[in-house]
Amino acid sequence: MTRYRITVEYEGSGFVGWQRQDNGFAVQEAIEQAIEAFSSEKVTVFGAGRTDAGVHALGQVAHFDLVRETPAHTVREALNHYLRPVAAVILDATPVDDDFHARFSAIGRRYLYRITNRRSPLAIGRGLSWRVAVPLDAAAMHDAAQVLVGHHDFTSFRATVCQAKSAEKTIDRLDVERDGDEILIHVEARSFLHHQVRNIVGTLKWVGEGKWGRRDVEKALAARRRAAAGETAPAEGLYLVAVRY
Amino acid sequence: MTRYRITVEYEGSGFVGWQRQDNGFAVQEAIEQAIEAFSSEKVTVFGAGRTDAGVHALGQVAHFDLVRETPAHTVREALNHYLRPVAAVILDATPVDDDFHARFSAIGRRYLYRITNRRSPLAIGRGLSWRVAVPLDAAAMHDAAQVLVGHHDFTSFRATVCQAKSAEKTIDRLDVERDGDEILIHVEARSFLHHQVRNIVGTLKWVGEGKWGRRDVEKALAARRRAAAGETAPAEGLYLVAVRY
Repeated sequence: MTRYRITVEYEGSGFVGWQRQDNGFAVQEAIEQAIEAFSSEKVTVFGAGRTDAGVHALGQVAHFDLVRETPAHTVREALNHYLRPVAAVILDATPVDDDFHARFSAIGRRYLYRITNRRSPLAIGRGLSWRVAVPLDAAAMHDAAQVLVGHHDFTSFRATVCQAKSAEKTIDRLDVERDGDEILIHVEARSFLHHQVRNIVGTLKWVGEGKWGRRDVEKALAARRRAAAGETAPAEGLYLVAVRY
Repeated sequence: MTRYRITVEYEGSGFVGWQRQDNGFAVQEAIEQAIEAFSSEKVTVFGAGRTDAGVHALGQVAHFDLVRETPAHTVREALNHYLRPVAAVILDATPVDDDFHARFSAIGRRYLYRITNRRSPLAIGRGLSWRVAVPLDAAAMHDAAQVLVGHHDFTSFRATVCQAKSAEKTIDRLDVERDGDEILIHVEARSFLHHQVRNIVGTLKWVGEGKWGRRDVEKALAARRRAAAGETAPAEGLYLVAVRY
């Protein structure tokens, strides 16, 4: 048996998310079917992050086992061949030790949230960014974001359906920068709560439009109630960029 | 009568190009229909550059006349409303003098060509970049590209169907740079021949993969025969970035 670690890029709009669901096609499923198509082995693919429907990945990491040993580059090429009909590709495949686990071995996850801040809707890259028409102050967003960096109880920023036992998480980095009419939000942590990044972005958007100040973000964090923080930013702007081991 | 200058962004894959054709839907047509829908005026929209099928625009410029005076921001918002079903948006609308002509007043056009240089196909941004699997040497491409800068007879780089009277053009800038696995080719000239940018890019690709050197590009240019230069790069990587007046 050989364990393979794969790095996966996907465009989230055509999927119900990473994880298999009853209501549609998941990235995990697409990859499992591609593996079966080339190897005739039925496997389960384990991903590092369970991205929601519509969320993209530039570098999702996953692992699976094959009974028949196959060169890693053959695995990559064969999977990409069978994945052709869907918006997912394998960027890299590597044999790893049996104790490697894409989810449990991960020590860091990096996300990017893209806002296109302009009046006109998007013609290019629809579904790849959140278009916000009202002008946003990226510097104010960055400043307020620093309130959330560090170890906190993020109850105000997690989905009410979130099943994690604890709402305590440590955000290592939360940077907001403007590049022309794009606002890029970079966030890193060991792990995240359900909707945590999108709820943070939705809250920072309120700061960007001047509706909220840094102090309001402090109060929202301290309140430990979901209703105390801002809106949930749409899935289409969110990218799982990389997973660290 | 008021003349309006508009700046247009579009994703080329759903269109037969800028200009009206018998075989499908053109960007020009989409805008003319949107104008008629909001103003009930039947107009002709004149564009600065007749982009081919599949070519994108970040800043195409066009003009048209309306009998009934309408605030420019209303024109923009109304057009964007009616353009919703298609991948084209109006970034800007401004009233201009009657002697402004989007095509004939233009003194410069800037294009960008995007290559994604990696083994794996694209999952995100399919149709927005040319994926080239063989590793390309961007520095060698940039060096060889300088052969084409300046005033030359570009017969070797124009489509055989090109109808321009003269093949002499002046390229003001032709820069090739690498940004991660992206290769960006920036090119500026007063005007271009049919397929000129795509034929230049296809030729530079040969240099990038080591099949050709700078000297071969010189010989191709001197030959003044289309067959002497490289392949035609696909439309999907090409963007009309801006038009200067």
